[in-house]
Amino acid sequence: MINITFPDGNVRQYEAGVTALEIAQSISEGLARNVLSATINGEIWDATRPIPSDASIQLHTWNDDQGKFTFRHSSAHLMAEALEAVYPGIKFGTGPATDTGFYYDVDPGEHQISSDDFPKIEQKMLELAREKNDYVRKDISRDDALAYFKEKGDEYKIELIEKRGADEALSLYEQGNFVDLCKGPHIPDTGRIKAVKLMNVAGAYWQGDENRQQMTRIYGVSFPKQKELKEYLEMLEEAKKRDHRKLGAELELFMFSEKVGAGLPIWLPKGTALRTRLENFLKQEQLKRGYQPVITPHIGKKDLYVTSGHYEKYGEDSFQPIHTPREGEEFLLKPMNCPHHCEVYGHRPHSYRELPIRIAEFGTVYRYEQSGELHGLTRVRGFTQDDAHLFCTPDQLKGEFLDVLDLTLHVLNKFGFDNVTAQISLRDPDNGAKYIGSDENWEKAESAIIEATKEVGLNTVTVYGEAAFYGPKLDFMVKDALGRSWQLGTIQVDYNLPERFELEYIGADNQAHRPVMIHRAPFGSMERFMGVLIEHCGGKFPLWLTPEQFAILPISDRFNDYAKTIEKQLAQHDIRGIIDDRAEKIGRKIRDTELKKIPFMLIVGEKEAEEGTVSVRKQGEGDVGAMSIDSFVEYFTSLL
Amino acid sequence: MINITFPDGNVRQYEAGVTALEIAQSISEGLARNVLSATINGEIWDATRPIPSDASIQLHTWNDDQGKFTFRHSSAHLMAEALEAVYPGIKFGTGPATDTGFYYDVDPGEHQISSDDFPKIEQKMLELAREKNDYVRKDISRDDALAYFKEKGDEYKIELIEKRGADEALSLYEQGNFVDLCKGPHIPDTGRIKAVKLMNVAGAYWQGDENRQQMTRIYGVSFPKQKELKEYLEMLEEAKKRDHRKLGAELELFMFSEKVGAGLPIWLPKGTALRTRLENFLKQEQLKRGYQPVITPHIGKKDLYVTSGHYEKYGEDSFQPIHTPREGEEFLLKPMNCPHHCEVYGHRPHSYRELPIRIAEFGTVYRYEQSGELHGLTRVRGFTQDDAHLFCTPDQLKGEFLDVLDLTLHVLNKFGFDNVTAQISLRDPDNGAKYIGSDENWEKAESAIIEATKEVGLNTVTVYGEAAFYGPKLDFMVKDALGRSWQLGTIQVDYNLPERFELEYIGADNQAHRPVMIHRAPFGSMERFMGVLIEHCGGKFPLWLTPEQFAILPISDRFNDYAKTIEKQLAQHDIRGIIDDRAEKIGRKIRDTELKKIPFMLIVGEKEAEEGTVSVRKQGEGDVGAMSIDSFVEYFTSLL
Repeated sequence: MINITFPDGNVRQYEAGVTALEIAQSISEGLARNVLSATINGEIWDATRPIPSDASIQLHTWNDDQGKFTFRHSSAHLMAEALEAVYPGIKFGTGPATDTGFYYDVDPGEHQISSDDFPKIEQKMLELAREKNDYVRKDISRDDALAYFKEKGDEYKIELIEKRGADEALSLYEQGNFVDLCKGPHIPDTGRIKAVKLMNVAGAYWQGDENRQQMTRIYGVSFPKQKELKEYLEMLEEAKKRDHRKLGAELELFMFSEKVGAGLPIWLPKGTALRTRLENFLKQEQLKRGYQPVITPHIGKKDLYVTSGHYEKYGEDSFQPIHTPREGEEFLLKPMNCPHHCEVYGHRPHSYRELPIRIAEFGTVYRYEQSGELHGLTRVRGFTQDDAHLFCTPDQLKGEFLDVLDLTLHVLNKFGFDNVTAQISLRDPDNGAKYIGSDENWEKAESAIIEATKEVGLNTVTVYGEAAFYGPKLDFMVKDALGRSWQLGTIQVDYNLPERFELEYIGADNQAHRPVMIHRAPFGSMERFMGVLIEHCGGKFPLWLTPEQFAILPISDRFNDYAKTIEKQLAQHDIRGIIDDRAEKIGRKIRDTELKKIPFMLIVGEKEAEEGTVSVRKQGEGDVGAMSIDSFVEYFTSLL
Repeated sequence: MINITFPDGNVRQYEAGVTALEIAQSISEGLARNVLSATINGEIWDATRPIPSDASIQLHTWNDDQGKFTFRHSSAHLMAEALEAVYPGIKFGTGPATDTGFYYDVDPGEHQISSDDFPKIEQKMLELAREKNDYVRKDISRDDALAYFKEKGDEYKIELIEKRGADEALSLYEQGNFVDLCKGPHIPDTGRIKAVKLMNVAGAYWQGDENRQQMTRIYGVSFPKQKELKEYLEMLEEAKKRDHRKLGAELELFMFSEKVGAGLPIWLPKGTALRTRLENFLKQEQLKRGYQPVITPHIGKKDLYVTSGHYEKYGEDSFQPIHTPREGEEFLLKPMNCPHHCEVYGHRPHSYRELPIRIAEFGTVYRYEQSGELHGLTRVRGFTQDDAHLFCTPDQLKGEFLDVLDLTLHVLNKFGFDNVTAQISLRDPDNGAKYIGSDENWEKAESAIIEATKEVGLNTVTVYGEAAFYGPKLDFMVKDALGRSWQLGTIQVDYNLPERFELEYIGADNQAHRPVMIHRAPFGSMERFMGVLIEHCGGKFPLWLTPEQFAILPISDRFNDYAKTIEKQLAQHDIRGIIDDRAEKIGRKIRDTELKKIPFMLIVGEKEAEEGTVSVRKQGEGDVGAMSIDSFVEYFTSLL
């Protein structure tokens, strides 16, 4: 008998050679039906692989990332089997799982595979899935593996095997008529794959080398239930409609210009109004909490970034140094605001009584990204961080952390992000040498983060070894309205920069001490946050935030003056909007306003002008009826 | 008899050979006593030079720039005469007038001249001035001039003469025992110089060439009245106290960091609060006037600036292009915001009905300046323009110009700059070819500017030939509290950029037209304006603007809580300030607060806490008495 330890610490005894699937069966038939793979002693295994001796176990299903990953990887094998059936002689490169599905790079030989061929491949996949073929692992020597693929004639697999060490143990996986070189793990059998859809076909160079064979990369998604595929496709459809690049252009929020450069967003008037409102909201919150705004330049001497270490980090792959007419003088576009803020802190001596000092700036930074990686507002080359750097004593760390946590959650909730989790990144306990700062301070910082997140009841995942070398950190993840995850704000503890900039304060003991520094940005960046927010709310911004809260639509130009008096009355209540006084039919005005997602249309004609009312239409909902201006103000305010 | 035309158009007849001095005498003895030189047919002449034929005349006195310039230049000759008397054998380079006085570059041979020698030189100057020696002009041939200075042994003058054309007519000026090679003009006699002071002595390379002789440059000032010298020296003393670099550090408004780089100001929290208040004031005014804020990046592709022409203008002498890891890709730090705003205008088609479009941005730009030219906030390498670009039809130009004028004057007055003049820069009427844009549009623009400035009653100087090649412009000059002139805001008409960026609007005729563009910045730049404002108000900012409007000073820590309740009450009336709750004696607190130039000190102790009052001290004025919070709010508000 062997001892199997469950995640909750429970230990149960099984026969040696038991599989995770059998263990699941011993718990419940339902669990067995859903189990896809298992983590055995920290390594992910097939659920059908015998466990020879004492082990810890964690079962994986579709509900966790590891389970999904196994499912998708097995789906890639299933697609390969189908492709081989449809296109005999096709050769295979590599076929991994991705965050949303899977792909396989194949060399179809004389065949051409286009999206027109997807239905027949999908059909074949489902047919093979219904056969419920087991995924069978076979350990194999390098020589035998080579012999197998030489006989099959797949030079890509041969190349992959030849790269492996002479004595390395390899494995094959077989399901139905298909055999692949693969480390695994895989799901028990193909029958668990109930829904598949091929999404896209593209070219991809073998091994990413543009001088080598162009392979055909086929992307697909798969699910354990048909319903989940349907929901996924609907989500994609909705995501396309909500694409912030599309909405950003339609709503005239931002633009890109080829002449200014890719990845450098230009905020148009409406986007600027929105962004300013976001910024002001956070600025006010920060003022209340004792932050001190500063403004620093967008460049600094190269020396500054050599001191901070950023030159070493960003130097080669980023925007290159700016030379001047003076020999040897070099500046850099700032990739981060922290070096400047360290200079602010350091410009005069500080007493412990002044701490914490919280230096804040909506600071625009520039980092080079490959043009292929740019994406709307979410991946750019220039962006504005809602940055602040807090300088405090080690004892103040927890209090500051709690306040930053509170602020960040307040901000995210304000914009309707209710599903917030965070990753706590701590030291690798086995590799203490790679971190800067004393053990005592690290322990203080790590326990401050852990306790603070607990105190506010934040859902967290703790990952050891993911801390930066300069300190532990906390990254916030939000789920948007379509269930997609985005990384937004961040809080990082830093022992490194205070050291590099030799920052000090005079303690109660009259001695010089080094402050601890916290980097934090609740939005993350204005660009990225705005991009995510646009998609989260599909362009229908919260009423308090939206650039134009109403549009007054006069039925004809006879009522333009009345429209203007209403606009003025509403302005007095801080309600902002526009008048559509174009010489267009009212139907056209309504359609155009609907497209702009303006929350309220106030239609005014003969009757309204006489009675001093407006006829109100709510965006997406339609007619709300006629009301006096006062009533509208009341109604409007109740919705804020 | 010849006809002499006066500036007001009046014509009077005089004998041929009459001098400006005689003409002044014919008007009044007082005028004759004050006349220093005269503009005859557009050229400045000695007041004692005979006028041979019909001419226009403008007499110059100490009250105009030309008169001052003549006076200072003659003072340089007077100093040279004194130097020659004190240091026989001294040789002379050049000795021009400057904006504030004059200098002479001399080679004292074996002598050393230091500021210790100033009194004896000044004494000699005044002694020679009392001799009332006439400045006598002598036309002379190049050969005779050479012969004269060869005999005298002044190799610098010889070099100057040798550079002149062989047939060029030269002139000498003689007063007392001193003869100088000089074009003139000069004042009638040395007796008009009543007060002199030598200010400084420094080294200066002959002809500005560091490989040549190091000359001794002696700076001086001179005045027609002793009282004016006294006032000037007092002004300098006061200016030293008000130096914005000194006050900026004392009041913790801004800082410079060697690591960030010279000429790159960092705004500290109090300076940021001030600047933000300045910006918000203008932003609100601009929103009222239909400006649309945008936010654009601080870099752009080199192509953008090639298109705009800025690369040609700033390229070589400025920050050099920023390379990226991608071969051939180049960006530039933006030296101006206009190219970005042109891209904003051009990103979609416009109808004439949408015009004028007013695109505004507080845009930070970077221009390289030699390190020796940098000066506090007024000469920097990175600065934020309160920029806007107005795109309008030619017919809208005057209306837009009027509105911009109104806005600019409103802004300048709001900050206590009451003495505002402007320079109108128009085309050179004799050189039409060098300007871009049609004659018709230029005439429209020039008359729009002239009429608009007249309508608002602005004092202007019109200068022909000073327009930019792309359009006429208006530059605002303010006099600060010490009477010093500063160039601040500017308005420029531009036909060039709309052409280069091929900007268009569809007119009522359904045809494409080119809009006119107006560049304008009422502050000029936030940095420069703040620098000037600090010196103008000596750090005592207008009450509405100042970062901290009050400081509550508790007599002991027993009254800290009472101080906090007062702070809260005042915050409700938007009155902001601080509490000095340090464990210091009240006298010390008062002294420290006085130094920070905080307008009001509210002292609270036993009596105040009991009676619910504060004891008010006004900065620079002292005790105002005890009052209730409500009374203080009322009193404070009345001063806003």
